[in-house]
Amino acid sequence: MNRPGSPPDDARKAEPESAPARATRARPGDPVAAIDTPALVIDLDAMRRNLARMATFAREHGMRLRPHAKMHKSATIARLQIEAGAVGVCVQKTGEAEALADGGVHDIFISNEVIAEAKLARVAALAQRVRLAVAVDSALGVQRLAQAVKAAGSKVEVFVEIDVGQGRCGVSATAAGALAHQVLAHGLNFAGLQAYHGRAQHLREAAQREAAIAHAVAQVRAAQASITAAGMRCPLVTGAGTGSFLYEAASGVYGELQAGSYLFMDRDYADNQATPGAPQFEHALFVKSQVMSRSASHAVLDAGHKSHAIDSGLPSVHGLDLEFANGSDEHGILRPRGSALPALGETVWLIPGHCDPTVNLHDHYVVVEGGLGQGRVAALWPVDARGRSD
Amino acid sequence: MNRPGSPPDDARKAEPESAPARATRARPGDPVAAIDTPALVIDLDAMRRNLARMATFAREHGMRLRPHAKMHKSATIARLQIEAGAVGVCVQKTGEAEALADGGVHDIFISNEVIAEAKLARVAALAQRVRLAVAVDSALGVQRLAQAVKAAGSKVEVFVEIDVGQGRCGVSATAAGALAHQVLAHGLNFAGLQAYHGRAQHLREAAQREAAIAHAVAQVRAAQASITAAGMRCPLVTGAGTGSFLYEAASGVYGELQAGSYLFMDRDYADNQATPGAPQFEHALFVKSQVMSRSASHAVLDAGHKSHAIDSGLPSVHGLDLEFANGSDEHGILRPRGSALPALGETVWLIPGHCDPTVNLHDHYVVVEGGLGQGRVAALWPVDARGRSD
Repeated sequence: MNRPGSPPDDARKAEPESAPARATRARPGDPVAAIDTPALVIDLDAMRRNLARMATFAREHGMRLRPHAKMHKSATIARLQIEAGAVGVCVQKTGEAEALADGGVHDIFISNEVIAEAKLARVAALAQRVRLAVAVDSALGVQRLAQAVKAAGSKVEVFVEIDVGQGRCGVSATAAGALAHQVLAHGLNFAGLQAYHGRAQHLREAAQREAAIAHAVAQVRAAQASITAAGMRCPLVTGAGTGSFLYEAASGVYGELQAGSYLFMDRDYADNQATPGAPQFEHALFVKSQVMSRSASHAVLDAGHKSHAIDSGLPSVHGLDLEFANGSDEHGILRPRGSALPALGETVWLIPGHCDPTVNLHDHYVVVEGGLGQGRVAALWPVDARGRSD
Repeated sequence: MNRPGSPPDDARKAEPESAPARATRARPGDPVAAIDTPALVIDLDAMRRNLARMATFAREHGMRLRPHAKMHKSATIARLQIEAGAVGVCVQKTGEAEALADGGVHDIFISNEVIAEAKLARVAALAQRVRLAVAVDSALGVQRLAQAVKAAGSKVEVFVEIDVGQGRCGVSATAAGALAHQVLAHGLNFAGLQAYHGRAQHLREAAQREAAIAHAVAQVRAAQASITAAGMRCPLVTGAGTGSFLYEAASGVYGELQAGSYLFMDRDYADNQATPGAPQFEHALFVKSQVMSRSASHAVLDAGHKSHAIDSGLPSVHGLDLEFANGSDEHGILRPRGSALPALGETVWLIPGHCDPTVNLHDHYVVVEGGLGQGRVAALWPVDARGRSD
């Protein structure tokens, strides 16, 4: 066996060689029928309505809106959200922040902890060119962040994350004051509390989500008390998702909403009981697929879980009453229910079970205007932060 | 809202702008400790042993070996397999075939149906520069393939896929002769039978896998009889996976093995009862992660299911007895079991539940020689066909 590492294998080849050729497979102006499959497709008309509905909600409720861009990973979409009134976006990862900054997004909150020193150096460097905030939940994290920022001569806003019921990251509410004090003691800017309850988002009944957010609000109040007791003030509380944002907005303690999935609405969110009084959103993200094998009993699609993520369950079939069964990495299996099976070569539109990791599988969005039936390709938008879990 | 489709958003931006910068985060010569997380890491010493074991098995059993490159999506690895004796590789998708051909792989079998005319034109074009085979399971597929090949003036080998128990693609065994006849009648080269039993691979007990392959072999014999009855001969039967290849090799009807996962061995395959008499393989693919949040009860890793696929279950933790719980897209949660929880910032190596879709999340492999503890980065290898489900 040859030794690896010879010149043709070097890092520059990590750029897929035929990406430009691939991207031409759908061109602006093409009819929808010409989009080859599988393809990640945005129904732009539906997305625009979702975008406007959430912007209106935030404005009418006097809330700052900072949508979570971990969902779409697109600088183009982030800029549309900001043009519609968002103050900026959230991301989860340093690499996402870099990719969106490269795409012209200038106000970014990494709503997650960064602990690796190499990454903190990147955070500090990025803060020299965009307005940047980051979350902390440990004294070590604060200390390392302060060192990195000092070395770079830059400035970041720091949110203390509290665990409001998710059971993942974040300090307890009563420990918030002490950690906020550390932030200030290290010469960093304490910007407020990161208080997101992820698990609340998919509790199926609205009353369950309301109760979960009531618990979160109680944690926020306790954290605020602990900050006040330590002699500081808490400038902002930020959090909320598409399943719960009405409750955070009504709480009187949250000042900023981080919902992201409202823009695309996946099958998992659509399975929630609607929140009374909240704006409703439409499916705006689809995987276009086609039947590539057909028997009397089932049809096989050319899209499997390398085309749509199944961590939140299987996709549903748009506009047809068919059962979708997992056909593994490259295939989906359809069985008849109320609708007859489509024929070999026919198009089938899938609604992903979970938008975020589905988007992360694709290099670009095919953006359609005029509907999935008779519309045309309006643009291709890169998924700028695809794969940027770094 | 601005209209989309303005020049800065065009298709060329589908190339992530900062990929070269990102790829430098691990450099050949770096110690393992310097690899930033999450990272997809190959233990090259283990991979070489796996590679040699399967090559030896195929040689000693007089079998052709055509490993499935849907698993690794890497032209570099495909070339290593071919240098070690493989006749070529399989892929599932036209885009994968193109990406590997671009990387210098010259003998490729698309072991799957292609039905879209635009894709068939690409198949026919690709056949002008590499030795190419493709599977069919419908008269329409044969007809369209013949048209595309005729238009391009190229030549492809055609395998008739039969359903040997998977219940997905493929005609019934008794229909093989008629479809093979169609292949010949359209002036195409009939190369034999594609007979892969995917569902057999993860039946946990060896006896269950043996029984499933006995069923597959019976289907192959029936298909061969149907081909003979139609006055043709069947040049080759190809199939088999990492969970079952010993049985196909012993069958007397299969001539070519398509196993792929043996090279990396994921947690799901390791959960199988070993096949008596078959070579054993080692874990050679890992996701390097680190603790980015820590409480008394749990540690949170910086790798979630945007870094490792969970369709075949959660990853296991290498070398430590810890429970891994799903922390969603960007986080993994560890709880203590036999081992104590790692500290904030400590490295944790994950063994993916399923290699194939895990690899498909990453742009490159960080290839380590000398072991995960004290080794060094030997190379970065691009995942050439990442995202190439087209």
